[in-house]
Amino acid sequence: MERQDRDLAFMLQYENIAWFDGGAVRILDRRVYPGKVEFVTCKTHQEVTQAIADMVTQSAGPYTAAAMGMALAAHECRGRNAAGQLAWLEDAAENISHARPTTVSRMKIITDGCLAAARRAIEAGEDAARAIMAHTVEANDLRYSKVRRTAGYLVDLIPDNGTVMTQCFGETVVGMMLKECRDRGKTIRLFCPETRPYFQGARLTATVCRDMGFDVTVITDNMPATVMQNEGVNVFTSAADAICLDGHVVNKVGTFQIAIVAKYMGIPYFVTGAPDPGHPTVDTVTIEMRDPEFVLQAMGTRTATHGVKGYYPSFDITPPHLVSGVVTDNGIYSPYDLPRYFKDGDGEFSQAGLNL
Amino acid sequence: MERQDRDLAFMLQYENIAWFDGGAVRILDRRVYPGKVEFVTCKTHQEVTQAIADMVTQSAGPYTAAAMGMALAAHECRGRNAAGQLAWLEDAAENISHARPTTVSRMKIITDGCLAAARRAIEAGEDAARAIMAHTVEANDLRYSKVRRTAGYLVDLIPDNGTVMTQCFGETVVGMMLKECRDRGKTIRLFCPETRPYFQGARLTATVCRDMGFDVTVITDNMPATVMQNEGVNVFTSAADAICLDGHVVNKVGTFQIAIVAKYMGIPYFVTGAPDPGHPTVDTVTIEMRDPEFVLQAMGTRTATHGVKGYYPSFDITPPHLVSGVVTDNGIYSPYDLPRYFKDGDGEFSQAGLNL
Repeated sequence: MERQDRDLAFMLQYENIAWFDGGAVRILDRRVYPGKVEFVTCKTHQEVTQAIADMVTQSAGPYTAAAMGMALAAHECRGRNAAGQLAWLEDAAENISHARPTTVSRMKIITDGCLAAARRAIEAGEDAARAIMAHTVEANDLRYSKVRRTAGYLVDLIPDNGTVMTQCFGETVVGMMLKECRDRGKTIRLFCPETRPYFQGARLTATVCRDMGFDVTVITDNMPATVMQNEGVNVFTSAADAICLDGHVVNKVGTFQIAIVAKYMGIPYFVTGAPDPGHPTVDTVTIEMRDPEFVLQAMGTRTATHGVKGYYPSFDITPPHLVSGVVTDNGIYSPYDLPRYFKDGDGEFSQAGLNL
Repeated sequence: MERQDRDLAFMLQYENIAWFDGGAVRILDRRVYPGKVEFVTCKTHQEVTQAIADMVTQSAGPYTAAAMGMALAAHECRGRNAAGQLAWLEDAAENISHARPTTVSRMKIITDGCLAAARRAIEAGEDAARAIMAHTVEANDLRYSKVRRTAGYLVDLIPDNGTVMTQCFGETVVGMMLKECRDRGKTIRLFCPETRPYFQGARLTATVCRDMGFDVTVITDNMPATVMQNEGVNVFTSAADAICLDGHVVNKVGTFQIAIVAKYMGIPYFVTGAPDPGHPTVDTVTIEMRDPEFVLQAMGTRTATHGVKGYYPSFDITPPHLVSGVVTDNGIYSPYDLPRYFKDGDGEFSQAGLNL
């Protein structure tokens, strides 16, 4: 993607979500965006870990934030000797990659990439933070090109004047899908479930769609079935927080039930992203349980009375028989044949594979 | 039900939701309950219609409010001659029964009952408002006894230590179900989807469950599938805004997709209430489309950015093949055999049949 292609929405989505500069990492606070455009400033790599755990940034955001946290960690230990720097960075990688239990496997790919870049720099007597930044820019550029190829395959699956239902916030791939539609002159409209309790669909996905100039409608999370039945939805699509090699898809809670409903309606469900070698089967997945009180409020206002309990699994698991295709940068795979992904294309699963 | 059986929760739910007194109708504002206990005061029957349209009261509330609106209309025209009073009341009945398009058929049963009581009073030279109030108290008492029988059949279907999922706010029957459980010493726990955009599940159903002393958990509307899979849900149940004689169930949007998910999971869906002769088939149902902007906020705070559209069907339609049983005061019916309801029991469909 040429830089001049990037409009404000893209810049906001891709570039400024998390950046290391001047001894701190600034992260766009997606918990309040687009109502407010505010940044959380992290002065230590542990604060970056905490910000990721607190869901300051979401979708692909945590991965860039993790890399920026590694750059900050390199900045923190810059006065030490080589062994001291490496030890510090290894500790930081461990800390950052465990910010959220469900994404440790993918986070490790990020922190491992940063560690390798830092190691090379330290051995060459160069600045590790700068090396991590350069590595991240390069990895993101490669990732964007992979996401763009993924989006191309996805757009092939959507009819012109078609209707697409999303789930949660598939950040980069949603933006790329719409850019690809625009480039091809393909008109689509979108229905975005609001995605309680954080409203990522209403706040983030819908904003990207509107900024890209598309017809977008937000619905509450109890409406997908009636919308699918009455509004001619052609495709249900989501990104994923993990795609297990056995075809199970881990994504924002709600994905599973929309996939069940889509199957009932005869509407295909396409998940975007690369299969995750860190999860050979679904048995390796840990579903993060968050603070149950959080579901008892909406946009900061309490909904339920006291004495009522909450329940808050961050993710759910969609079994492969509900997945019509896994759309990757190498093309579309059956969820029952994912190891083949690694034999195709560049055969490499790296930071660039996290095409969210 | 003996008066001494009624605890505060019951009083609040059944008695004080809407009442005509001193030339006005006071309606508990369920849009803000339980955060605030406030009443909307309607000084004309048209204001009662507007309050129902504005969803000040929900579930069984609109039916009592409609009767109270008829009492207020009788009060408004008390100085006229008999023909003038009847003409005024017929106009009022037309106005009130059309407050919401999906429930006209049921509302007409209420207003017709009030009209008949008023007509008898006017012909006997008695006060029509007082007659409507007496009729409503009697009809509600009969309704409560029918709801209690319905709740008994429903509780038969729930195992001891079972887990029940609700949808929206099945007011009277939820309270009666829990009372019946308590009377039998049967322990159950409940999961209540919050029911966006009005949060009736979080605000109302969960409050009744807590007030009745039961273990109740509120979940967001994207969680039913994962809760059914992981928390051992035995039964999904809801009331209905209309049960068509062909077995289609009209209820709060979201019911349809939970029914699809329940079917997928092998969990039965039991709908409570009497079949509705005003809807011989689903073709007679009009789904009310409400202000789309309302789904773009939560508890009064805007969620989506400007330029994004909303979509707000109040209800959805669940087809009979997803309904395991229609639980009525006469017992449990197949959704494919509902006309038989009218041959059983007292063979009468009246205000008392609206066992919500």
